[in-house]
Amino acid sequence: MFYLIGLGLGDAKDITVKGLEIIKKCDKVYLEAYTSILTVGKESLEEFYGCPLLLADRELCESTIDTILLEAKNKDIALLVVGDPLGATTHTDMLLRAKEFGVKIQIVHNASIMNAVSCCGLQLYNFGETVSIPFWTETWKPDSFFPKIVGNYLRNLHTLCLLDIKVKEPTDESLTKKIRQYMDPKFMTVAEAAKQLVQIIENNPDAGIDKNCLAVGLSRVGADDQRITVMSLQEMQECALGPPLHSLVIPAPNLHPLELDYLTQYRQ
Amino acid sequence: MFYLIGLGLGDAKDITVKGLEIIKKCDKVYLEAYTSILTVGKESLEEFYGCPLLLADRELCESTIDTILLEAKNKDIALLVVGDPLGATTHTDMLLRAKEFGVKIQIVHNASIMNAVSCCGLQLYNFGETVSIPFWTETWKPDSFFPKIVGNYLRNLHTLCLLDIKVKEPTDESLTKKIRQYMDPKFMTVAEAAKQLVQIIENNPDAGIDKNCLAVGLSRVGADDQRITVMSLQEMQECALGPPLHSLVIPAPNLHPLELDYLTQYRQ
Repeated sequence: MFYLIGLGLGDAKDITVKGLEIIKKCDKVYLEAYTSILTVGKESLEEFYGCPLLLADRELCESTIDTILLEAKNKDIALLVVGDPLGATTHTDMLLRAKEFGVKIQIVHNASIMNAVSCCGLQLYNFGETVSIPFWTETWKPDSFFPKIVGNYLRNLHTLCLLDIKVKEPTDESLTKKIRQYMDPKFMTVAEAAKQLVQIIENNPDAGIDKNCLAVGLSRVGADDQRITVMSLQEMQECALGPPLHSLVIPAPNLHPLELDYLTQYRQ
Repeated sequence: MFYLIGLGLGDAKDITVKGLEIIKKCDKVYLEAYTSILTVGKESLEEFYGCPLLLADRELCESTIDTILLEAKNKDIALLVVGDPLGATTHTDMLLRAKEFGVKIQIVHNASIMNAVSCCGLQLYNFGETVSIPFWTETWKPDSFFPKIVGNYLRNLHTLCLLDIKVKEPTDESLTKKIRQYMDPKFMTVAEAAKQLVQIIENNPDAGIDKNCLAVGLSRVGADDQRITVMSLQEMQECALGPPLHSLVIPAPNLHPLELDYLTQYRQ
């Protein structure tokens, strides 16, 4: 059996009782470590779960997943994923391959940022489509997420912006070498995201959204040290919201009175 | 301290380890029993959690919540909510009142249908705004959710339709009497939702969506006996998907190849 188990968002104890029981009976447990992170490291999880965890980075998930799935034909293998296990396309693909191989699967759901974002008081059913904001480089400044934010905004819907993370990314130089070298992990902050957004807005003054629009910054949602802050997008460029992960929300222009009351407590 | 604890979607073991530890130390534990249901009853939960649960129906949540919150000033009180605790407006309102009273709060997130719907293979970031489909009566047939579905569809986004549930609703006759009488609980099926939608589409032939569009029926998401089925909306009117809860998804007209592959396995 192949188990895809969501770990939730905070620390080791955010796993469900069902998920923990499965881990304890598994022959091998992998920890997916490149689409998101918890606030605690691998060692804390191993201590709490009482078993060793094998790190599954992007290379493993994309290149040797077939070997793992085939192993799951006769053994119990789990892959632990931060948040809900079906948040990322990679895992849907894995399940299709498992089916192809005749491997039985079980999914154990958990909270993900896609629903826990409601902690800021904005109602989930007022969110439009979610966007991802990638790190810009000197030469690559994609902005395909921007029309989606505007589309939501003009329909009076909130937008959850997931911010880029880079974990175990090979350096450009090492791509042509035999020995891979990796960049330090980096996680986009709400300030960096706001800067990129303000730049796009300044280049598109008639898009229908202004840099003085409201923005909600969230960090470490679901953890004890979770932080929420509300200010204009313009001001958010200077916001220091502590350690990762960060998420940004662009609220609809007209809020429900209850949403407004709730946000007000976080207004800077 | 006032704890709002999500129970997830399936059975007693879908609670998080953190949530379970909090329950065990609480002085009083309420179970919210009108916005959603688990696949198991109150007794199973009490047995697994090892403590008695007080049923919190709509009347209690809306009229005597202040008493409960004030009690939480000096005691540890938990309110258990199916899914994620912040899925419904009621609970956001509760948290604002708690703040007003100076009561400390903690939220324990969990999976909700809003993220677990990804089990059908449709990607969460391709969902537009969520809608609720209410039961129609002879004289009340609201369709304000329909333009939202069409709006998502025309922007090539999926729509999650949450289907109405009626738990402990007073009968019309009893509203004027001193003794309240309650209707039997009822839960909208995907077939009932599809019938209402087809009727609206037939009344709005130029809306931009056809009754032969694809529909995904889901029942008991997150439970062992979860079912997923894919057929046209027209056909969904005759679909029997077993016991509640049901949810319906109207997928975007143009699917990602991976989404299409995944849905195909459920095609009737």
